[in-house]
Amino acid sequence: MTPPPRRIAVLGLGLIGGSIGLALGREGRFDGERVGYDPGSGTADRARERGAIDRPAAGPAEAVREADLILLAAPVLAIEGLLAAIAPHVPAGATVTDTASTKSGVVRWAADRLPDSVDFVAGHPLAGREIQGIAGALADLFEGCTYCLIPGKASAEAVGRVRWLIAAVGGRPLEVDAAEHDQAAAGISHLPLLLSAALTGCTTADPGWPLMSRLAASGYRDVSRLASGDPRMGRDICLSNATAIVEWIDRFTADLGHLRDRIAAGDPAIESIFAERKALRDAWIDHVK
Amino acid sequence: MTPPPRRIAVLGLGLIGGSIGLALGREGRFDGERVGYDPGSGTADRARERGAIDRPAAGPAEAVREADLILLAAPVLAIEGLLAAIAPHVPAGATVTDTASTKSGVVRWAADRLPDSVDFVAGHPLAGREIQGIAGALADLFEGCTYCLIPGKASAEAVGRVRWLIAAVGGRPLEVDAAEHDQAAAGISHLPLLLSAALTGCTTADPGWPLMSRLAASGYRDVSRLASGDPRMGRDICLSNATAIVEWIDRFTADLGHLRDRIAAGDPAIESIFAERKALRDAWIDHVK
Repeated sequence: MTPPPRRIAVLGLGLIGGSIGLALGREGRFDGERVGYDPGSGTADRARERGAIDRPAAGPAEAVREADLILLAAPVLAIEGLLAAIAPHVPAGATVTDTASTKSGVVRWAADRLPDSVDFVAGHPLAGREIQGIAGALADLFEGCTYCLIPGKASAEAVGRVRWLIAAVGGRPLEVDAAEHDQAAAGISHLPLLLSAALTGCTTADPGWPLMSRLAASGYRDVSRLASGDPRMGRDICLSNATAIVEWIDRFTADLGHLRDRIAAGDPAIESIFAERKALRDAWIDHVK
Repeated sequence: MTPPPRRIAVLGLGLIGGSIGLALGREGRFDGERVGYDPGSGTADRARERGAIDRPAAGPAEAVREADLILLAAPVLAIEGLLAAIAPHVPAGATVTDTASTKSGVVRWAADRLPDSVDFVAGHPLAGREIQGIAGALADLFEGCTYCLIPGKASAEAVGRVRWLIAAVGGRPLEVDAAEHDQAAAGISHLPLLLSAALTGCTTADPGWPLMSRLAASGYRDVSRLASGDPRMGRDICLSNATAIVEWIDRFTADLGHLRDRIAAGDPAIESIFAERKALRDAWIDHVK
């Protein structure tokens, strides 16, 4: 068994980094020190006030000094810069992990940027909410959530450290391959985000929106929810996983087009399509409960 | 002011009819008798056991006898048959209302089927959940929800009775025109339903679904939620509002196609589109809170 880390550095104290800090701060989870860094003015101080970190650091280099587990909790396209910034300062033997939404680029950048004396285990906790930043952070955000890890070429000890972290925040570890992760995430996470954004776009742009906005209820609220997410995270997801996302949009559009044609034809068999989809979705919900 | 009704007949004791019965059964809401009918075997008895009605009736004719307010809580395409069944038995001076998801057909059928001595005020409470039937009924399902009413040619007294009902169940009345209602509902209610169904369809049919089903989290859950709704209600919505729904699918598809092209082009300006949609959706959420 890998011993628990003694000092954890959290770089990026938004919703995810802040929630990981809070989760580790819970009674009996972690005995060592949580050092935090965030480029946002005052963010690290707010994170300390909320109990998400023990001590703020002035920059990435200071944050990782003497840390044995380093967590990069930033949008995908910020990860490469963070890796470059910490590379000269990461202690030999330390483990670096991240929480970004797409994994192929991150794995490649880590191989390019980090010294051989440091292990990288990519990670992705599948949890989120529409309140961003340290203000939205919750100690139990990851409780029971699937938390992907991508061991790559990391040592067993490094993988053990990340598994320790996942257990400490309450997640359920799932080992996956980066390309497989990105393809799957495009269908069940990035596509839903784009559906929420497109639903919000086409309805709010309609001349009938003043009435529609009053009729819109829980169905609209839930299907549009992801449109309230962080725009920069959305951008980074789209830029880093474009091919898979475009494929998924095309599959979705073909399926919606099929439903459209049944509706235009006034085909009562649309009921059996709804019944089949209900059975599939109910089976999924029963399974994840 | 219209005096409250003395006897209310609820025809259809599923999620909506059952919830209206339970809402009326709350302390201080309604002093008279709630008579209920449902064609499902044992459903009316279960509704009485749950406290949603005071007394079951053997058929529509018996249910409406001596009722001064009659509520038809059935899928859209069942309403015409119910109107035909009760027409010879509705007491003169009674008010008939319904809760169906689309309104143009219902208004037309009521004008065709009901005698002149009876007023019809179409209604639509904008609330629902994915647990169907009397088992899903909740006393507070309509608390704070928008409840559309379409007075048409009904007397002020009849409109007053339906407004009394809306207040008694906790809804917020909104007078609309049937065509305007159906057009707006297609965008904010029927389109989201089809997006949920298409998302469920294209993801569960994929060879990668075993992994995807484990990665799918709260985003997927919320955007797919409406796929777990009642397939017959879905069918009736599609058959009774096809033109408006097809128009909305086309608008949605055009918007999603625009996002797709930005993603395929690797355009970082996708961030400003996300930011704009976030602002619009956040403004809506703040407004409905």
